Amino acid sequence: MAIVTLMTDFGLSSPYVAEMKGVILSICATAKIVDLTHAVAAQDILTGAFLWKQATKTFPPGAIHVAVVDPGVGSERRIVAARCGRSIFIAPDNGLLGLIVESITPDLIIDLDDPVYWRDTVSATFHGRDIMAPVAAHLSQGVEMKELGSPCPDVKPTSLPRVVASSTSCKAVVLWIDGFGNVITNVRESDLPPGFTDDFHTFRCGNVLISHVVSHYAAAPVGELVALIGSAGMLELSVVSGSAAERLRARQGDSLELSWQT
Amino acid sequence: MAIVTLMTDFGLSSPYVAEMKGVILSICATAKIVDLTHAVAAQDILTGAFLWKQATKTFPPGAIHVAVVDPGVGSERRIVAARCGRSIFIAPDNGLLGLIVESITPDLIIDLDDPVYWRDTVSATFHGRDIMAPVAAHLSQGVEMKELGSPCPDVKPTSLPRVVASSTSCKAVVLWIDGFGNVITNVRESDLPPGFTDDFHTFRCGNVLISHVVSHYAAAPVGELVALIGSAGMLELSVVSGSAAERLRARQGDSLELSWQT
Amino acid sequence: MAIVTLMTDFGLSSPYVAEMKGVILSICATAKIVDLTHAVAAQDILTGAFLWKQATKTFPPGAIHVAVVDPGVGSERRIVAARCGRSIFIAPDNGLLGLIVESITPDLIIDLDDPVYWRDTVSATFHGRDIMAPVAAHLSQGVEMKELGSPCPDVKPTSLPRVVASSTSCKAVVLWIDGFGNVITNVRESDLPPGFTDDFHTFRCGNVLISHVVSHYAAAPVGELVALIGSAGMLELSVVSGSAAERLRARQGDSLELSWQT
Repeated sequence: MAIVTLMTDFGLSSPYVAEMKGVILSICATAKIVDLTHAVAAQDILTGAFLWKQATKTFPPGAIHVAVVDPGVGSERRIVAARCGRSIFIAPDNGLLGLIVESITPDLIIDLDDPVYWRDTVSATFHGRDIMAPVAAHLSQGVEMKELGSPCPDVKPTSLPRVVASSTSCKAVVLWIDGFGNVITNVRESDLPPGFTDDFHTFRCGNVLISHVVSHYAAAPVGELVALIGSAGMLELSVVSGSAAERLRARQGDSLELSWQT
Repeated sequence: MAIVTLMTDFGLSSPYVAEMKGVILSICATAKIVDLTHAVAAQDILTGAFLWKQATKTFPPGAIHVAVVDPGVGSERRIVAARCGRSIFIAPDNGLLGLIVESITPDLIIDLDDPVYWRDTVSATFHGRDIMAPVAAHLSQGVEMKELGSPCPDVKPTSLPRVVASSTSCKAVVLWIDGFGNVITNVRESDLPPGFTDDFHTFRCGNVLISHVVSHYAAAPVGELVALIGSAGMLELSVVSGSAAERLRARQGDSLELSWQT
Repeated sequence: MAIVTLMTDFGLSSPYVAEMKGVILSICATAKIVDLTHAVAAQDILTGAFLWKQATKTFPPGAIHVAVVDPGVGSERRIVAARCGRSIFIAPDNGLLGLIVESITPDLIIDLDDPVYWRDTVSATFHGRDIMAPVAAHLSQGVEMKELGSPCPDVKPTSLPRVVASSTSCKAVVLWIDGFGNVITNVRESDLPPGFTDDFHTFRCGNVLISHVVSHYAAAPVGELVALIGSAGMLELSVVSGSAAERLRARQGDSLELSWQT
């Protein structure tokens, strides 16, 4: 009973996710399909890459993960399968895989170019349903990954902007805002000065003072604006029992000026 | 392990979908329940009919599909099961089945009037949970369809408005707008002049020129407004890597004046 | 194949629900995970308690229900498992369980304080993933509930405000508004005068006359504002084929003045 997970930018109001599930179950009736999220913003590859890495990291080895954020559908971009650890990730080769392969180097990457494992008729508009879903189903039936196409050496890297930091400041981008209003930035722990996560800094976002640098939300009083390294390994701004996005009027894609004193 | 799919207009914030799943699993613990979508607009039978046909068409034979968009709950409308191909569709007989039976003629239709297969107590407000869910579960347990009630000759047809087209124009209705802003109309390929899908037409929506009639989205440059026959067999307006709904300020239910020159 | 249901306030745009599913499937690959809803308003324990009771009540005995609405994560609040009937409910002990234990007295409550059944590393910010999910998975694998921690005598009661009613009026709170615009209040049938559900009352919400007190929606003409005891056992205001929330301009948390004459 292989696990097949799905992440897309289709939203839950459309029939598109269901069409993919139907294709998978038609080939592999016992597949255990798990929805990760279908609320990636339309054609937002970078956020998709971030969410995909987060959403898949607790799944057991052997899972087959499919992500469809595919503005280039119908163009010449490849569709690939990458085996990282013992899990397989299937996606258009447009950067969606970039953060996953940064943390686990793939030992095999296949360009999914063998139409034997596609649907009989392949539309020009929906490769998630016509190529990725059937390939995932064949994999979950036991088809060997190398049967599915030609080996290829690498995948397109992430376009996550590198942070340029001085010793007292950096320019960040808002990568994602979660349902609680936590503001997740593109700043990695390694972009920050060593020892950042203790309490001895003055820290600002623009002109706004961040009252605490903490290890977890509840370590500061309700209503305080705090900074922490979140579960994604990224710097996150949070208001305890409130919304940092509202407090900072931050929106996805915004630039933030962060500065600190040690 | 029978597949039971669910489509409703309940939304995902309510407990109603979960109540149906609990009923199904109480009768058939091994049922494989698949959510199609629960975001049909409240009591919008026509959109429901359109989405249901789309969302079910890739599922394997033997699947049991349940749709609940039921403004008439508690009134005298029937609840029916229709066998189309080897799949079974369960819904209130209010037009929801209309587009499915147009494409696959049912070989058996049953009025689900035998309370033996209902929940012990049937509310007046929630037949999805009290009648349709348990009937689907009994079917997935192997109960014969004809045991569930009385044969009936037909189901209520769709109210999808027939398009009146001249040789150079037609009046369309916006049937649905997907998460990418693609505008799906009620115009079928057969409503349009033969050879519509090649590139030799001038084509307008109201005063707006549609720059290309294409076979797929990526066949035109980014930002162009194009027309195509979508995967639903309906005329669809699309902006390449953009939103046709925004460009045309189109909303579901709007009338569109389409005109063309050959 | 144990059923594990999930209800959270994470929303469906986040990867958090997927992270919990990955943890569960890593421990118990055959678990049948069912989403109840993930649209509880952020940190809204009271609505969560209401929706959880509703969404779980049709599930078969043996199901394991996990709810995460956890503003106190990282603080000293307990996480508990309560066995009610033959189902097990796992939640932070913050009132989420309050309405369930009111209707089915638990025969066993365990403080989930044995880290043997937690993830190896427990974050300070996500006990749903690190404690509740693995505990649910171990239960579904057959671990005895009493192995999971220390018995404890009770759980925190609900904070659902008690209604103070006179013989002709009461002050209600809007507990929840469903996708159809039905307004569910905190008024229980027992708060109302005996014989409330027949048709012989004059009934008002503020200055607005409620035209009928009915047993089900369709018992009054389209467009009428009606009151009924809904499937949750709570007084519900509804417009037939319309939205009572719009008619009354009611929002979740609002106070309503109800008055009647017999």
